[in-house]
Amino acid sequence: MTNGAQALISTLVDAGVEVCFGNPGTSEMHFVAALDSVPRIRGVLCLFEGVVTGAADGYARIAGKPAVTLLHLGPGLANGLANLHNARRAHVPIVNVVGEHADSHKQFDAPLDSDIEALTGWSHSWTRRGSSPDRIGRDAAETVAAAQATPPRIATLVLPADVSWGEGRGPAAPVEPVPAAAPDPATVAEIAKILRSGERAVLLIGGAATTERGLVAADRIAAATGARPLVETHPARLTRGAGVPAIDRLGYLAEQATGQLDGAEHVIVAGTRPPVSFFAYPGKPSDLVPAGAQVHRLAEPEADIVAALEALAAEVAADVAPRGAVASLPELPSGPLDVRNWVQVIGALLPENAIVSDESNTSGVFLGAATAGSPRHDVLSLTGGAIGQGLPVAVGAAVAAPERPVIALQSDGSAVYTISALWTMARENLNITTVLINNRAYAILRMELGRVGATEVGPKAGDLLDLSRPDMDFAAIARGFGVPATVATTCEELSEQFRAALAEPGPHLIDARIPSLF
Amino acid sequence: MTNGAQALISTLVDAGVEVCFGNPGTSEMHFVAALDSVPRIRGVLCLFEGVVTGAADGYARIAGKPAVTLLHLGPGLANGLANLHNARRAHVPIVNVVGEHADSHKQFDAPLDSDIEALTGWSHSWTRRGSSPDRIGRDAAETVAAAQATPPRIATLVLPADVSWGEGRGPAAPVEPVPAAAPDPATVAEIAKILRSGERAVLLIGGAATTERGLVAADRIAAATGARPLVETHPARLTRGAGVPAIDRLGYLAEQATGQLDGAEHVIVAGTRPPVSFFAYPGKPSDLVPAGAQVHRLAEPEADIVAALEALAAEVAADVAPRGAVASLPELPSGPLDVRNWVQVIGALLPENAIVSDESNTSGVFLGAATAGSPRHDVLSLTGGAIGQGLPVAVGAAVAAPERPVIALQSDGSAVYTISALWTMARENLNITTVLINNRAYAILRMELGRVGATEVGPKAGDLLDLSRPDMDFAAIARGFGVPATVATTCEELSEQFRAALAEPGPHLIDARIPSLF
Repeated sequence: MTNGAQALISTLVDAGVEVCFGNPGTSEMHFVAALDSVPRIRGVLCLFEGVVTGAADGYARIAGKPAVTLLHLGPGLANGLANLHNARRAHVPIVNVVGEHADSHKQFDAPLDSDIEALTGWSHSWTRRGSSPDRIGRDAAETVAAAQATPPRIATLVLPADVSWGEGRGPAAPVEPVPAAAPDPATVAEIAKILRSGERAVLLIGGAATTERGLVAADRIAAATGARPLVETHPARLTRGAGVPAIDRLGYLAEQATGQLDGAEHVIVAGTRPPVSFFAYPGKPSDLVPAGAQVHRLAEPEADIVAALEALAAEVAADVAPRGAVASLPELPSGPLDVRNWVQVIGALLPENAIVSDESNTSGVFLGAATAGSPRHDVLSLTGGAIGQGLPVAVGAAVAAPERPVIALQSDGSAVYTISALWTMARENLNITTVLINNRAYAILRMELGRVGATEVGPKAGDLLDLSRPDMDFAAIARGFGVPATVATTCEELSEQFRAALAEPGPHLIDARIPSLF
Repeated sequence: MTNGAQALISTLVDAGVEVCFGNPGTSEMHFVAALDSVPRIRGVLCLFEGVVTGAADGYARIAGKPAVTLLHLGPGLANGLANLHNARRAHVPIVNVVGEHADSHKQFDAPLDSDIEALTGWSHSWTRRGSSPDRIGRDAAETVAAAQATPPRIATLVLPADVSWGEGRGPAAPVEPVPAAAPDPATVAEIAKILRSGERAVLLIGGAATTERGLVAADRIAAATGARPLVETHPARLTRGAGVPAIDRLGYLAEQATGQLDGAEHVIVAGTRPPVSFFAYPGKPSDLVPAGAQVHRLAEPEADIVAALEALAAEVAADVAPRGAVASLPELPSGPLDVRNWVQVIGALLPENAIVSDESNTSGVFLGAATAGSPRHDVLSLTGGAIGQGLPVAVGAAVAAPERPVIALQSDGSAVYTISALWTMARENLNITTVLINNRAYAILRMELGRVGATEVGPKAGDLLDLSRPDMDFAAIARGFGVPATVATTCEELSEQFRAALAEPGPHLIDARIPSLF
């Protein structure tokens, strides 16, 4: 006999889901027990659900397929929502399994009871509620297929405890995801015509288009037509470095973005949306498309955006070869660490084929330039603005690609949100080097105060943006979670410690203390 | 001129709200700046929203009135939901201010945009969306009044950035909350008749009835009628110790509760609901009311439950005096720490008038007995089952009552959820002694595995319930967050360190390492 939980897990594995990031509770105990009955699934314990969902996001960005999360009832899902929000913005596939009280138990409104679908609705998740042990295999197969739509998305299976423990018909066969739509030749032709017109155009790419094939196509189009290529501000996965076409990212600050878009008569978007300001500011526009410019979408969201870019390149740039960035390393700097030199250490020492989980925020403003000629790497960025993504995403990326070095560049205030990700790095012996940029401030907010016009700031306001008194010692915290850690205050120390961490497998943390930019 | 944020904060203060627990973002910068323009409000920075909401809960349990939280958009609220779930179950008043994008910005679905009301709906919060700087003072006054309904509840004011920065009419006068309904004399008389009938009755009290007046009335009723008094399993605030009537709590495990309720022909509930199993178990009932027993409610939820109990006591126990628990301390134990002796150290050394934030879970099964004759104290328990409440609740309680010693009894797995509460303890120099019960397991889940019938457990399942490999060093983590910390492995060490921590103002943590019960 096979219970519902065993049927579910077997179905997941048959559909290609190999990793379960989880933090279970009583209602999920049969799912947990069933993990041992299915050899091909790996269970990874995270000590907080924000780590669970962020790890599933990072895994999907690198593996290109979903992991499954295991979450305990509504409150467990609630704890994972912020990183699901980021994952939704990243358009990655995630399969959530959310435990639920047995149907017979729901009527009593027991202490942990809540409206799970209110939360899946908030995260725009495709959602299925399991109704019987006989059907749960089929439900699981359809949930995996839903996650692998185009663009990929979050899909959630709500699993009542009695469906989990009841005996049923066993696993179901995988369900094929709906394939991506082919690009529309008429739209491609129309945009080709615009690009050939000589009018000034920006080509803004995002989503699935920011890895090599999309970048190559965009670069060829730009080289042939003079359009200005740009990558969306916060790409889920951006391939860059020596040999890869180097395309600037649209600036985070509206002032930067406005400068990049200035003069454009056409804004062509591919795999992303027209540019918009991150926040509203008094008297400033939210819509960053230059006045009078026309917006064109290369393809519908359901289409294969890389194929669309390649079709466009074939039309306008048939004979044009892509231009890869030239290998060029910054010199190793010396002296006390600051916001300009720590990134040079990273750029100078970044290993080949690294994955960089970047939540360095204001401390990372000079990171892109310092690593432009470093060996080829993938950058995973904070896609939805909900802080606390970087360390969990690094966990998931390292599980997906154990052969690649993972570098987490993590600012202090954001790190605290999901700091227990460090423990999972230690538990799983993940090859992650965390450089914790410790500037002791919510520096971005100090900057934003002035930008929103809140210029009269007193001590109470200042205290809410300050992370000193007491200073946090992230090396001590990391050791407490089982990760070897050191402190760096100079470029020499950071260089030496970063080299040593990269040379030794397993997780390390460097508490890099720099002055705040603001 | 007064902007919306200033009007809002002035109105809150005029309505008696004195403390703001917050973690702000760009959209809340005008609120942050406005804190300095209103002298009577105190801003307390927490490094994660689960700490913010848990602190507001702990504050309300002790202060008896709401604090205000400051949360950054939907993702900030999402991070605070689990402890709002606990606060909802605790029936405490909380005023949330959730920042929101300016109205003009909403249409662009910027990265941090989301459906905030989906989340306030999940937490059963009364919700108002601010619409203009002219009206925001009135909105704030009505939000505070809504939080102070009977029973108290969570009330949320969604604050668009443009309402915050716009100039308006200034603060509004406080709005009186709807007063509690008077108890219904007919219901009281009917229950008095049942109690006098000689049939076996249980009197289950909860909510506002578990502090001294309610306990005294319940004890007098029990003494006069022979009814068995019980306190709900997870009271928000239970006053106990020497001199206070000692009333057993309903057991967490259905097996315990069934034994306590066995034979009852009447279950009279006051300030709480009929007993229900925390989780469902195969083949076991969720409804714990004995078969054939009648359930009676002493009052509607909107009524003054303490007044109802006192009216009932006046009817059936006019001449009966309450019986306070006798002062009696356990002997200080010696030898290696275990689940039975660590609580005796607490019981022997608990200071007068302490507040105990108890999230010791399975490690605390013997805590009640060990502290029954200790000096009078208040216990704040985990009300909604969403772990990670204990440290934040301790923060809030300490802010509400700086003159009282606060003791956080905190299990390891739950501590990790909101561990950065330690930093706020250090920042605010709160007089909190945390005893971190470090048993290196989700012990409760090891117990629950067998109870749900998941008996075939292999290594993968075991790993998901195990908190070792690596062992966490909570003393190191605490020091990293700025809290002085020690490690105790014996009763002698725990006694000495607990005494020392109590003797010195400010926060301390003791990493007490005990074997897991399961």
